[in-house]
Order: sequence, then C-alpha cells, then structure tokens
Amino acid sequence: MNKNELLSLLQPDIEQINAVMRHEISQCGNTLLQQILEYALFNGGKRIRPVLTVLAARLCAFSRMPEGLAEENELKPPVNLYRLAAVFEFLHGASLLHDDVIDNAGKRRGKPSANSVWGNTQVILAGDFLHTRAMTIAGTVGDHHTLSLIGAATAAMIQAEFQQMQTVQQQNLSEENYFAVLRGKTGCLISAACEVGAYFTQGSDEHQRALRSYGDALGLAFQVVDDLLDYQGDPNKTGKAIGNDFIEGKMTLPLIHALQHCAEGERDHLLELLKGEAAARAGKISEVQAFIEQYDGFTYARQGAEALAEAAAAALAVFPDCQSRKTLAGLAHYVLTRQK
Amino acid sequence: MNKNELLSLLQPDIEQINAVMRHEISQCGNTLLQQILEYALFNGGKRIRPVLTVLAARLCAFSRMPEGLAEENELKPPVNLYRLAAVFEFLHGASLLHDDVIDNAGKRRGKPSANSVWGNTQVILAGDFLHTRAMTIAGTVGDHHTLSLIGAATAAMIQAEFQQMQTVQQQNLSEENYFAVLRGKTGCLISAACEVGAYFTQGSDEHQRALRSYGDALGLAFQVVDDLLDYQGDPNKTGKAIGNDFIEGKMTLPLIHALQHCAEGERDHLLELLKGEAAARAGKISEVQAFIEQYDGFTYARQGAEALAEAAAAALAVFPDCQSRKTLAGLAHYVLTRQK
Repeated sequence: MNKNELLSLLQPDIEQINAVMRHEISQCGNTLLQQILEYALFNGGKRIRPVLTVLAARLCAFSRMPEGLAEENELKPPVNLYRLAAVFEFLHGASLLHDDVIDNAGKRRGKPSANSVWGNTQVILAGDFLHTRAMTIAGTVGDHHTLSLIGAATAAMIQAEFQQMQTVQQQNLSEENYFAVLRGKTGCLISAACEVGAYFTQGSDEHQRALRSYGDALGLAFQVVDDLLDYQGDPNKTGKAIGNDFIEGKMTLPLIHALQHCAEGERDHLLELLKGEAAARAGKISEVQAFIEQYDGFTYARQGAEALAEAAAAALAVFPDCQSRKTLAGLAHYVLTRQK
Repeated sequence: MNKNELLSLLQPDIEQINAVMRHEISQCGNTLLQQILEYALFNGGKRIRPVLTVLAARLCAFSRMPEGLAEENELKPPVNLYRLAAVFEFLHGASLLHDDVIDNAGKRRGKPSANSVWGNTQVILAGDFLHTRAMTIAGTVGDHHTLSLIGAATAAMIQAEFQQMQTVQQQNLSEENYFAVLRGKTGCLISAACEVGAYFTQGSDEHQRALRSYGDALGLAFQVVDDLLDYQGDPNKTGKAIGNDFIEGKMTLPLIHALQHCAEGERDHLLELLKGEAAARAGKISEVQAFIEQYDGFTYARQGAEALAEAAAAALAVFPDCQSRKTLAGLAHYVLTRQK
C-alpha cells in the first residue's frame, strides 16, 4: 500500500473527523478564540490519532461479525465515535499550543506559530480551552473507563516532559529512560487513541490489548523517526530547522547510541555542551551529525524504528486479515517513510 | 457569626479537603512536579470553593432528613465528596498558575510566584497536570452531569478571559459586560462548586437551583470586593500592589461607574490611557483613585457587593434554618469584610 492509496482510504474518515472538529470550534463562544482554534487545528495536521480511533473501532466491530453479514466498508461509525476520535486531536493540539509557548517557537509546520500571531496569553488560554472541551467530551460521550484512559494518557504526557527536563541534568544515557520519555510524550496518547476506539465498539479484552500494543509500538516508531528527521530531515519538508533537539539540549536515540559507544573524552565534552547554554550548541550541528554518523547512531535508530513498526504490525495478528487491519499495518509502514 | 467562629466551624472540612489534596499530589509521579504542586496549592489559599461543595452537600442532605433523625454535625460526608470538592481547588489553582505566567507575576499571596521560582515551562505544565487530574476526578468520581457542570464552568472562565481582553479595546463601559466577565471568571466556578455539592447528595431541583443562585451571587460579591481591594486594600495584607488592575488595563466596577458619570473629556483621556502602554499608567494610580472617589465609584461598588451578598443569603430561604445554612450565610457576609 503506497502513501497515496493509504491517504485516499483514510480520506472519508478524516472528513468526518474534520466536520465534528469544525462544529465543536464553532460552539466555542468567542470569535477571537474561534479564530485561534481554527488556525491551530486546521494547519495541515495529519489526524493520525483520531484516524487510529476510528480504524480500531471498525476493526473490532468487523472482527466480531458473522462472516458475510456485512461488507467492512459498509460499517458506518456513529457520530459519537468521531467525537471521541476528535478528543485525541484536541489534546494533541492543546499540547502543541502550550509547547510552542514554552519553546517560544516562531513557526509550526512552516507557518507562523499561533503564539507569534496572537501572543502567549491568548494561546495558553486557547490550549486550556481545547483541553477542557476534550476532557468533557471524553467523559460525557465516553464513560468512566474512557475518561480514565484519556486522563491517564494526558497525565503521562506531562510527567514525561518533567522526566525529559531531568534527563540531561542527570546525564541519563539509558535507552530505557529514552523510551520511557517517548512513551509518555507520544506513545501513551496514541495507544489510548487505539484502545478507546476498541473499547467504544466493545472489542474483546484481547482485541483491546492488541490495539493498545499496536498503538504503543506505532507511537514509539513514529517518535524515533521524528528524532531522526530532526537531524536528517529536509527543513523545506519538515518545516523545522536541523538539529533543533540538540540545540534544546535534548538527547535522542541517535545521539544516545553514539555517546554510549564513543571514547570517554568525547562523551564528557558533549555532555558538558548539552548542559550549557543553547547558544553554544547552535554552531555545532554538523560536528554532532558527523559524530553520530561515526558511531552508527543513525543506522541504529533507523533499525530500532523498523523493529517497532514490525512489532506494531505483528500485534494485529489476532484480527482477521481485513481492510482495516491492512490499513493499520500500512500506517505502521508509513511512519518509517514519512519525510515530515 | 464573626470570622474566627466561621473559620473554626469550617476547619474540620478544610482538613479533610487538604488531606485528599495532599494524597492526590503525592500520586503525581514526578518529584519536581510534586514540589511545584505543593508550593502552589499549600500557600495559604482559603479553600472557599471546596468548602462550598461540602456545605451545599450537607445542607441538602440535612434538609431532606426527617426531623430528629440525626444531628447535622453527625453527617459525615464520604471521601468521594471531598475528592469532588478538591476538583474546584485544583481548577482554581491551575488557573492561578497559568494567570501568573500570563501576567509574568513575581508574587502570589506575598510569596514568590511559582513561575518566578521554577520558570514558565514547569508552571504551564503543572497547571495542565492539575487540570487533567481535576477533569478526570470530576468525571470518574462524579457522573456525566457533574463533569458537564464542571467542564462548562471551566470553559466559561476561558471565554471570560477573552471577553475581558476585548472590553478595553471595545471601550465597553456597560455594567452588563462587567458582570458577564465576572460571572465567567469567578461566578461560574463558585456556583458550580455549590451545585455539584447539591447534586452529589441528590438535592431536589429546587435545592440545586437555590445553591446555584447562592454561588452565583456570592461569586460576584467576592469579585467586586476583590476589585475594590485592588484600589483600596492594604498591600501588606493582600500581598498585591495597589492599582494592579488599572496598570493591566482592566476596567472594574469602581472605575466603570466613575467613567459613566464624569465629563466627556475626562472619559476620553482615561480611555486613551487604558488603551496605551502599561508603563504610562503606573504613575497615575493616586490620580485615578481620586477620580473614582470624586464620582462615588467606590461607594457604588461597595453597595453593589452588599446587595449581592444579601441576594446570596436570600437564595438560601428555601432551606430549613440549620447550621449549614447559617455558615453559608456567614460566608456571604464574610466576603464583604475580608481584607485579603
């Protein structure tokens, strides 16, 4: 399944997701707030999280049906599933708004960031609003279990941000710590998106677990590729400058691997650099790229991402070999090839 | 009932509320996050919102009981009521954390603000965490209706912030607009605190409505007094500099009243000043105080607060004349006399 086939398969669901998002934004009660939310949420986001909710729900529903009763593509999800799916895009959007204020980011996906257009006050509040609406929808369209899953994923995102801040200070070079941060920052929300979809259509415990595992591995693969793109991507495609993570003092898998395998003197030098001022790191990007390359950090991270994508696809083995399963497997493959 | 009698009546409930708050914070999963939450939530807050939830619940429960079945003070609320009550303190705390980042505030209640101790990043994230936990508890300890009430109040707070930003730009001098902003910023969360307590103990529709009205009027009275203290309070008691609202370009009731009754030239001059840079307003505080005094703005606002506190107490007339009702009426009186 190539990228264009995948996108055209997802298009009808994305349109439904966009429709419920637009409806929700239109109810926000203030014209300025509405403008900011429109700008932040309709700026070319790929809608991966809500799409996963819908696909997981469809896969569980179809897997349970007696053979021949219905064609898979005839399963039209109720609007409430799309509303729950949109919760994940709202939470993701809220965290991007707050991240951009925190990082004082001037750009987001190649366009001026919302904070650079409207200011920090408006954007912090807009993020809070998205968050409130997301949690309210989660717990009123969904039930206690749905809200608990989503609340735990959101809490994990914040805990991981704190853990990440402490990583460099503690000079923690373990992959275990790296993946724990990744899981919190990205994996938890993605696996919750899958699990909530499965739970919504009353998937069996086995099916819910399988989709949670799929989402967990997919989220990690997605983020490892993100960390690779940060060093190796084309800024015209990613919309981000090369080496941003390094400048911000974040240690990602390619660098961690190189630091684990280099000489002690090199390691001490780089750890000093990472603990210091960002300005001192800005001129060192090509030096660090060469350092990572020398110790096979990029190859190692690429292989790790491939193994995770394979693990994601393998988690789907408990389901019949239907279109939704193929699409989910296609998504796992797609995260490896993405260039932005 | 004087202030000390009131406080000693409330003390046992405040201790229960503090206990569930401490337990919740201890579960936050990160030592740095825990430190920030402790600092922000245990810095001398009066716990008015959660106390209202508990009192409203007790009042409704007692009102329904056959006479003589139990002493009122024997009604020991379940821990889940205290957990729901704490939700209102968490939401209030989250909004203070984000407000202090937005206002770049150096102090909160006379001590260094959390953002000045830990930085904006940590404090934005800590606010988000409180918010997530509050909404999760609201919807899992409570039900759909509880979460809807709390979600609507939180959304109203943010909408009111946007409305307030637009007030000065639009030179909106109406009291209607002033009270709409007040209701959103303070009244909605306080009336939701009362209503959720009433709903939790299955108070009748009439009793839920009465406590909602009580909370609405109490919240407005509380905030009008806050706006008076901003001009007239003792900085050693309030922990805030005099004239802060004016410097931030906010029009509150004393100023609005004066602007409505002054000569056109004075009005235009002050509105220009309010639209301009904050620095230009910093040296004008005593001039503005005299201006408000000249047009009876302080007296007018004080009388408004008194009428609102009376309306709050009057809303309780549907309940039997018991201790909880007396305490709630006492709180309405207390907001008029507070000096910080």
